[in-house]
Amino acid sequence: MHASTRTGPYDVLVIGGGIIGLVTAWRAAQRGLRTAVADPSPGGGAALVAAGMLAAVTELHYGEQALLALNLASARRYPDFTAELEEASGRDTGYRACGTLAVALDADDRAHLRELGAFQRRCGLEAEWLTGRECRRLEPMLAPGVQGGLRVDGDHQTDPRRLAAALLTACERAGVTLRRAAVARVLLDGDRAAGAELADGERIAAGQTVLAAGSHSARVAGLPDAVLPPVRPVKGQTLRLRIPEAYRPFLSRTVRAVVRGNPVYLVPRENGELVIGATTEELGWDTTVTAGGVYELLRDAHELVPGLTELPLAETSAGLRPGSPDNAPLLGPTDLPGLHLATGHHRNGVLLTPLTGDVMAEALTTGRLPEEARPFTPRRFAAPAGPRPASPVQEPSA
Amino acid sequence: MHASTRTGPYDVLVIGGGIIGLVTAWRAAQRGLRTAVADPSPGGGAALVAAGMLAAVTELHYGEQALLALNLASARRYPDFTAELEEASGRDTGYRACGTLAVALDADDRAHLRELGAFQRRCGLEAEWLTGRECRRLEPMLAPGVQGGLRVDGDHQTDPRRLAAALLTACERAGVTLRRAAVARVLLDGDRAAGAELADGERIAAGQTVLAAGSHSARVAGLPDAVLPPVRPVKGQTLRLRIPEAYRPFLSRTVRAVVRGNPVYLVPRENGELVIGATTEELGWDTTVTAGGVYELLRDAHELVPGLTELPLAETSAGLRPGSPDNAPLLGPTDLPGLHLATGHHRNGVLLTPLTGDVMAEALTTGRLPEEARPFTPRRFAAPAGPRPASPVQEPSA
Repeated sequence: MHASTRTGPYDVLVIGGGIIGLVTAWRAAQRGLRTAVADPSPGGGAALVAAGMLAAVTELHYGEQALLALNLASARRYPDFTAELEEASGRDTGYRACGTLAVALDADDRAHLRELGAFQRRCGLEAEWLTGRECRRLEPMLAPGVQGGLRVDGDHQTDPRRLAAALLTACERAGVTLRRAAVARVLLDGDRAAGAELADGERIAAGQTVLAAGSHSARVAGLPDAVLPPVRPVKGQTLRLRIPEAYRPFLSRTVRAVVRGNPVYLVPRENGELVIGATTEELGWDTTVTAGGVYELLRDAHELVPGLTELPLAETSAGLRPGSPDNAPLLGPTDLPGLHLATGHHRNGVLLTPLTGDVMAEALTTGRLPEEARPFTPRRFAAPAGPRPASPVQEPSA
Repeated sequence: MHASTRTGPYDVLVIGGGIIGLVTAWRAAQRGLRTAVADPSPGGGAALVAAGMLAAVTELHYGEQALLALNLASARRYPDFTAELEEASGRDTGYRACGTLAVALDADDRAHLRELGAFQRRCGLEAEWLTGRECRRLEPMLAPGVQGGLRVDGDHQTDPRRLAAALLTACERAGVTLRRAAVARVLLDGDRAAGAELADGERIAAGQTVLAAGSHSARVAGLPDAVLPPVRPVKGQTLRLRIPEAYRPFLSRTVRAVVRGNPVYLVPRENGELVIGATTEELGWDTTVTAGGVYELLRDAHELVPGLTELPLAETSAGLRPGSPDNAPLLGPTDLPGLHLATGHHRNGVLLTPLTGDVMAEALTTGRLPEEARPFTPRRFAAPAGPRPASPVQEPSA
C-alpha cells in the first residue's frame, strides 16, 4: 500500500491506457509535458478486439457529416502517423493501404449501396461502383450472388493490437510514466481537477487530467455529475480466422456488406489473420462471447465469402466500444478546469487515433482545441446549452 | 536418453492412455497383471473432445444390430462401473441418468424418426413417441416447430474428461506404471509381440501388448501390415457453452435431431456445461477447429433450441475418432501372438468403456474373448477370411 504517498506533480495525468489514452500521452510527452498514464493493463482495452478498419468513407452514415470531416482528417494522417510511430517504437503496426470493397447481396442492398455511393460522391469522396462480376474479378472468393459494390481505395486498415503495443513502447521511450493501477477517483483542488488517487492509495498530482477510459469514462469517481461524459458501453464481438498459406491471399482488401440488416466485415491482414466483425449490442458491461454472436458473424460472413468455412477459427473475443449520444467523440477541455476528455470514439477509435493525439496535445499545451475538433467539444452535451441528452449507461449486470 | 535401458518385464503393456487404454490397464491390474501404459499424455485423446452421450438406443443405425447388442451390454454396466470407478479413484465422473429426446424438425424427419422408433421397438428397446407439444412440455427450450420426438429414458451421459481423469487416478492407485512417452515401435520376439520401444529409447518388455492408440493405432511402427488395424481418423468438432445460473436447467436431458442431414446433439451437464456436437469429417489427421464446423454446429443447434444464442460460448475443440470399416471396435487377440487390439470404437468409445475394460481383462487373463465380444475380434478383417477391407487412412496433411 502507498496510502500516504504522493507522486508528481505531473503536467498531465491520462486516466486510461487504451490507444486513445496512450496516443494522448505520447503526443503530450513529445511536446515536453511531464506525463503519466494510469491503467491496470495499459495497451489493453477495446483495441484488443477491434478489427482496425480505417473506414472514413465506408462507415459514413447519413447525418454524420461533421464526424466524416474528422474521420477523413485522421485518415489522411495515418501514413505519416504510422511511419512516425513505427520509427519511435521500433515496432510494426500492421498498417495496410489495401482499400475496401462494400458489396450488395441482393437488390435492396444494391439500391441502398448505390445511394450511399452517390451520397459519398456528393461529400467529395472517391467511391467507384462495380458490377457483381467486377467485384468478383477483384475478389474471387466473394459469393456468386454479389450484385455489385462500391470500391473505396482510400479506406485502409491497421492492426489495433500492434498499434496499442507500439504506442505503449513509444510512450515509454518518450518518458511517459506508466502506473499499472486502477484509478479510484479523480482528485479535486477547489474547482480544479488535480490528478487522481489510485486503487492502491497512491495519489498522482497533475496540472491537467485527461479522462480517456473508454466506455468506463462515465464510471470514474470523484467528478461532479455535470462533467461526467455521456458514454456507454456498446458491446462488439469479433472473430479471428487464420488463412493457411495455401489459401492466400484469400482476400486482398477489406470486404464488407450488410446482411439482413447486420453489418459484417472481413479484414485480411498481411500476416494471414482474417478478422470478422462485429456485433453491436447494448448489454451494459457484459463482455461474454456468446453462441449467438459467433453464430451471426459466421452466418453473415459465410454468406459474403462462402469459402471461409475451410479456415481455422483461431479466436473469439468481445469488447466494449465507448458509445456517445451522437456517435462522435468527446475531445478536449470540459467545464471543470484542468479536466479534459478523450473518449466516446465508438466505432472510430482506431481511425481517430492519430487526430486525437494531435488535438489533445494541442489542447493540453494551449488550452484550446484546434478548429477541426471544435464540434466535438464535450461542452456540446453540457447542461447550460439545453437539456443534457439522456445517458443510457447501464450498471454492471453481474 | 535411456538408449540401452530395459524395463519390465510387464505382463501387459498398453500402448495409448486414452479412456480405452486406461480402462484396459485398470481392469488388467485389478486381475493381478503387472501392467504399464505408454502415452505422452495419458488421460488425453478423443475423450477430451467427446460429448459423452451413452446413446445405445438413439445411436442405433440400420444394419448395426450386432453393435447394438455390444452397446447395450456396456450401457447396462455403466451405473455399477461408475460407482466402482468413483470409489476407486475418489473422483466424480459426471455420470447422469438423464435420458435423451430425439426430435424431428420437419415432416420428413418425423417420418424417419417414427420408423426408427418402430425399428428400436422391434429390437426390444424402449422408445416412446411424443407429439411436438409433449416434447416441448418436457423441454420448454425446444423450437416451436418441433414435430414430435422419441423419448428414450435409457440413454444417459457421462463427462468424458472427468471419466479420463478418474481412470488415470484409478490406474495409479491400482499400481499401473504410467510411462509418459510416445511409442517408437512395437518390439517383436520371434513371432510374438514383446512390448515396445519408446521415443526416448527405453524398451518396455511385456508378455502381452495391447494396441489402444485410437485413430493412431494403424500408424504404430514395428508390426506386420497384416495385423495393423484398419482404423482411420474421423474428425469431430464440438462446442462447449456455459449455462448461467439464471437460465438453468435450460435442458434437462440430452436433446438431439438431424438437421438437413446433419446429426446434432446438445448434452447438458449437471455443472452447467452444455456440449454441442459433433461434426463428422474425413480429413485425415487434421484437428483444426474451423469456421465452417463451428458455424454448422451453431446453426443446427440454434434451429433445435433457439434460446441458446444467449449462452456464453466457452470452448471449441476438435478430435479424431478411431473409425473402422464397420463402425465397430476391434477387441482382443490378433493373429500375432502376444498382440491385442482395443481400438476402432468410432462414435462409441465412451459408451463402450466399461465393456471394453471387462472383455480386454478377460482376454488378457484367459487368452479368449467373452462370447459377447467375439463378433468384434480383429480377425474379422484378417486377410485369410477374404479380401481385407480398404483402410482409407490418410497421411498427415501438414
